[in-house]
Amino acid sequence: LNGTLAAGDYIGFTFFTGYMSMLAASIFFIVERGTVNDKWKTSLLISALITFIAAVHYFYMRGVWLDTHESPTQFRYIDWTLTVPLMCIEYFLILKPAGAKTGMLSRLIFGSVVMLVAGYIGEAVVPAQNVMWGIISTLGWALIIYEIYMGEASKLAAASSNEDVKTGFKVMRWFTLVGWAIYPVGYMMLPGNLLSGFSGNIDLAYNIADAINKIGFGLVVWNIAKGATASEA
Amino acid sequence: LNGTLAAGDYIGFTFFTGYMSMLAASIFFIVERGTVNDKWKTSLLISALITFIAAVHYFYMRGVWLDTHESPTQFRYIDWTLTVPLMCIEYFLILKPAGAKTGMLSRLIFGSVVMLVAGYIGEAVVPAQNVMWGIISTLGWALIIYEIYMGEASKLAAASSNEDVKTGFKVMRWFTLVGWAIYPVGYMMLPGNLLSGFSGNIDLAYNIADAINKIGFGLVVWNIAKGATASEA
Ligand SMILES: CC1=C(/C=C/C(C)=C/C=C/C(C)=C/C=O)C(C)(C)CCC1
Ligand SMILES: CC1=C(/C=C/C(C)=C/C=C/C(C)=C/C=O)C(C)(C)CCC1
Repeated sequence: LNGTLAAGDYIGFTFFTGYMSMLAASIFFIVERGTVNDKWKTSLLISALITFIAAVHYFYMRGVWLDTHESPTQFRYIDWTLTVPLMCIEYFLILKPAGAKTGMLSRLIFGSVVMLVAGYIGEAVVPAQNVMWGIISTLGWALIIYEIYMGEASKLAAASSNEDVKTGFKVMRWFTLVGWAIYPVGYMMLPGNLLSGFSGNIDLAYNIADAINKIGFGLVVWNIAKGATASEA
Repeated sequence: LNGTLAAGDYIGFTFFTGYMSMLAASIFFIVERGTVNDKWKTSLLISALITFIAAVHYFYMRGVWLDTHESPTQFRYIDWTLTVPLMCIEYFLILKPAGAKTGMLSRLIFGSVVMLVAGYIGEAVVPAQNVMWGIISTLGWALIIYEIYMGEASKLAAASSNEDVKTGFKVMRWFTLVGWAIYPVGYMMLPGNLLSGFSGNIDLAYNIADAINKIGFGLVVWNIAKGATASEA
């Protein structure tokens, strides 16, 4: 395996750092789970599962990359199909003590499904129309943004009596707005799309975004749980 | 392995998401087991074993699929032979505090054996007669439905003093009625069967059904255990 990562293959480099950082993050979250109050344990477990699922798919993706130097689009979307809904569940679990209902979770997951199905169609099924599918996908993302910035989720967080949840939620949604924005920028580098002059760097964008949004987001959840545990004690 | 999952092979896609979600669910159940009262720990362990057994067989099945694009019928039934009886055991464990006897477990397992043996004969041994074997298989399923909707199991649950068990049991049996119904619908897409116009999607139906019935059902058990632990504390 190792012999085939050429010097200067910096995209391949990020597949390797992506794999290892996801695996290390999983261990971190699962072990740290032992130090927080019971009601936060499930959240840390979900953080660990998100990075673990990613670690497995990065393992496959770096293999595809080394063998073909093509985008491992299938594995990318297989990974997102599992991890994005889990991130919606993180929002739900964090806001549950504040009274979150499953309707909120359904709306977040619905937005994710629109976003990912349209994105997959644009990248893998009818790439000639990737601009149109990108726009549809962005609408799905906009539903999520709406829910957490103006919808029920934002109201619940604002009404929460727990300061750690309140400030933590603001950081979480900032990830969903700013961190997730790296993905559509990557997508726009596809041939025939708005930034296609930069073609070839879509995987670099996705790998950087994944590290920020999976590990960084998990660390925010971890921080909320740690802070709340300290103040509840 | 990796190179051969083609763009647009959405059945292959579900073999991969199936594999990973089963593995993640196993970790979830086994770790969360630590947070419930002792008397619920065995139930969560069984949930974890069901998804773990499935993860291993999905690993095999996705390999068969990638190599041949044919239904991995053998592994499908090997998996069900192990996991369906374990689901019967889940019913038994949940109703044990309410006084379940092993007779109930035997009846559930008898129904499962009829259902699976007949289904296997129809799919793999004499496919020309798959309609007849499908009907016999459905009779086995009907025995299970009878037991949990009208038989002893339903009476025990109704008489239980534990609210979490009572409402949880209703959700569990709903899975066995509605979630399990996806399997015979998939089976009817076999050539020569009632819905054969849809031929080729039997694996898609089975993969979706497995995710719902193994992970979803396990989550219901988890929810009962969590709720009961909170109210017993
Ligand atoms: C808006 C948009 C997209 C957004 C993708 C996103 C936001 C993916 C997020 C993935 C995450 C957060 C995974 C973490 O576990 C696509 C599909 C690239 C297509 C173009 C339009
Ligand atoms: C009724 C019927 C069938 C039912 C299969 C079922 C209900 C399988 C359930 C499997 C589960 C729940 C596995 C989970 O671990 C067959 C065999 C397709 C054959 C056609 C008739």
